[in-house]
Amino acid sequence: MTSYKYYFAGYPGIVNYILSSGNNFYFTCVDITVKGLEIVKKCDLIFLESYTSILGGCSHQELESFYGKEIIVSDRECVESGAERIIESAGEKNVAFLVVGDPFGATTHQDLFMRAMEKSVKVEVIHNTSIINAIASCGLWLYRFGEIISIPFWDGEWRPTSFFDRIVDNFERGLHTLCLLDIKPPRFMSVNVAAQQLLDIVQSRDSKDITSQTQCIAAVRVGTPSQRFLTCTLEQMKEVDMGGPLHSLVVIGKMNAVEEESLKCFCETS
Amino acid sequence: MTSYKYYFAGYPGIVNYILSSGNNFYFTCVDITVKGLEIVKKCDLIFLESYTSILGGCSHQELESFYGKEIIVSDRECVESGAERIIESAGEKNVAFLVVGDPFGATTHQDLFMRAMEKSVKVEVIHNTSIINAIASCGLWLYRFGEIISIPFWDGEWRPTSFFDRIVDNFERGLHTLCLLDIKPPRFMSVNVAAQQLLDIVQSRDSKDITSQTQCIAAVRVGTPSQRFLTCTLEQMKEVDMGGPLHSLVVIGKMNAVEEESLKCFCETS
Repeated sequence: MTSYKYYFAGYPGIVNYILSSGNNFYFTCVDITVKGLEIVKKCDLIFLESYTSILGGCSHQELESFYGKEIIVSDRECVESGAERIIESAGEKNVAFLVVGDPFGATTHQDLFMRAMEKSVKVEVIHNTSIINAIASCGLWLYRFGEIISIPFWDGEWRPTSFFDRIVDNFERGLHTLCLLDIKPPRFMSVNVAAQQLLDIVQSRDSKDITSQTQCIAAVRVGTPSQRFLTCTLEQMKEVDMGGPLHSLVVIGKMNAVEEESLKCFCETS
Repeated sequence: MTSYKYYFAGYPGIVNYILSSGNNFYFTCVDITVKGLEIVKKCDLIFLESYTSILGGCSHQELESFYGKEIIVSDRECVESGAERIIESAGEKNVAFLVVGDPFGATTHQDLFMRAMEKSVKVEVIHNTSIINAIASCGLWLYRFGEIISIPFWDGEWRPTSFFDRIVDNFERGLHTLCLLDIKPPRFMSVNVAAQQLLDIVQSRDSKDITSQTQCIAAVRVGTPSQRFLTCTLEQMKEVDMGGPLHSLVVIGKMNAVEEESLKCFCETS
């Protein structure tokens, strides 16, 4: 279950959604849609999910000031063990649950949704963008991406590598791979760490598909004013300085002529 | 180039984004973000791209009333041949370009972006949701999807089938396939037509991977109050009645236990 949270890695603060209901239960976050904002304003209780993501664009205080509402930061324990309480509140009050990322990008939230349904609390989702569509800003075409993967932080002897096979699968079919990078708030995985972990696997497997010279893209703080895209080899990616969170990495498959042109236009080179 | 527009198929009216610039050039649409709305309100010229999508949630008049601004509907000729004019306006005025779908889901818009850059018109993109992330509302996990495909309307002898190979590729790897369905406004492809075209290919190829019994999902008007998800076999999908635009189709690969549970919770059965 925990690996699923990587789905939020790479989602900047612009991303938001709402789960809401007739009697009433909501989800939302910053850079909210007009509809989302209206819902938040009529809510009695507003939770902000804080353990699978890093709020990108604003502070907790700025968010409270913008919404004109108190916001309850929900840590892992609150969301997982306290879910019953959140859902029960929604039987009596208007409740918003704010998340950075995709409504059903996390099993935790899918689970919350299902538990609410079991209690006959109708839930509404307000969608918003995520790195999964916003990544096209790097110049590559969305329909040239294969399966998305997540790269977890290695920890001592725990060095999972199964995501590498899926990158290779995509690569062999000429497809690009969006790699979502782990976050353990306030810690986030940089493209440097991701590249280093990939290079370690390349070396240990003597890989001929993905090598140190494979072209990739750093996609950083996408959707925020400080957004940056940079393309270089995996080897060079170890050393680039792309600044603060959140980072995502694209392993480029085979580009068509239009993508090559766009890449030159939209990405820096190292 | 034209096939690329299918990227918009399945995007409901909630989807929006903005291209904006210092001197000034913008993109946006309905169910806009708060940031997007602020930008539209300070724009002198607002274009609404109309030939790659069907505005889902509201009429042109409602949109004008909501924004408090006149909106210029941009047909294909206006966007493609008239792009120079749009970009030149952006040298002197604040210009918003509203699109249903993803900022760079269409080469046409990517091209507009690049042409603006060539003229030193800085362009800003405001992202929003799309079917590409909102599809997770059906209960399947986003990272269990493979390459996205587009199904074009067959026309007389013109019966392209190459997308089928990509569905099979995904299926053999256990991955789900999001099929974006063609639109030629005001005409849109229903899941019935999509299923029929797929079944024709299944039959002509004597396919053993994808068959008439393959499970799929109709995802209809996603993100709107009349959203529906229904799961059945490809054979049954020919006959279901899922109502008005826009429709998308998911060919299910291999589900894990959590996805199976979610599907039961989130999808109707036929």
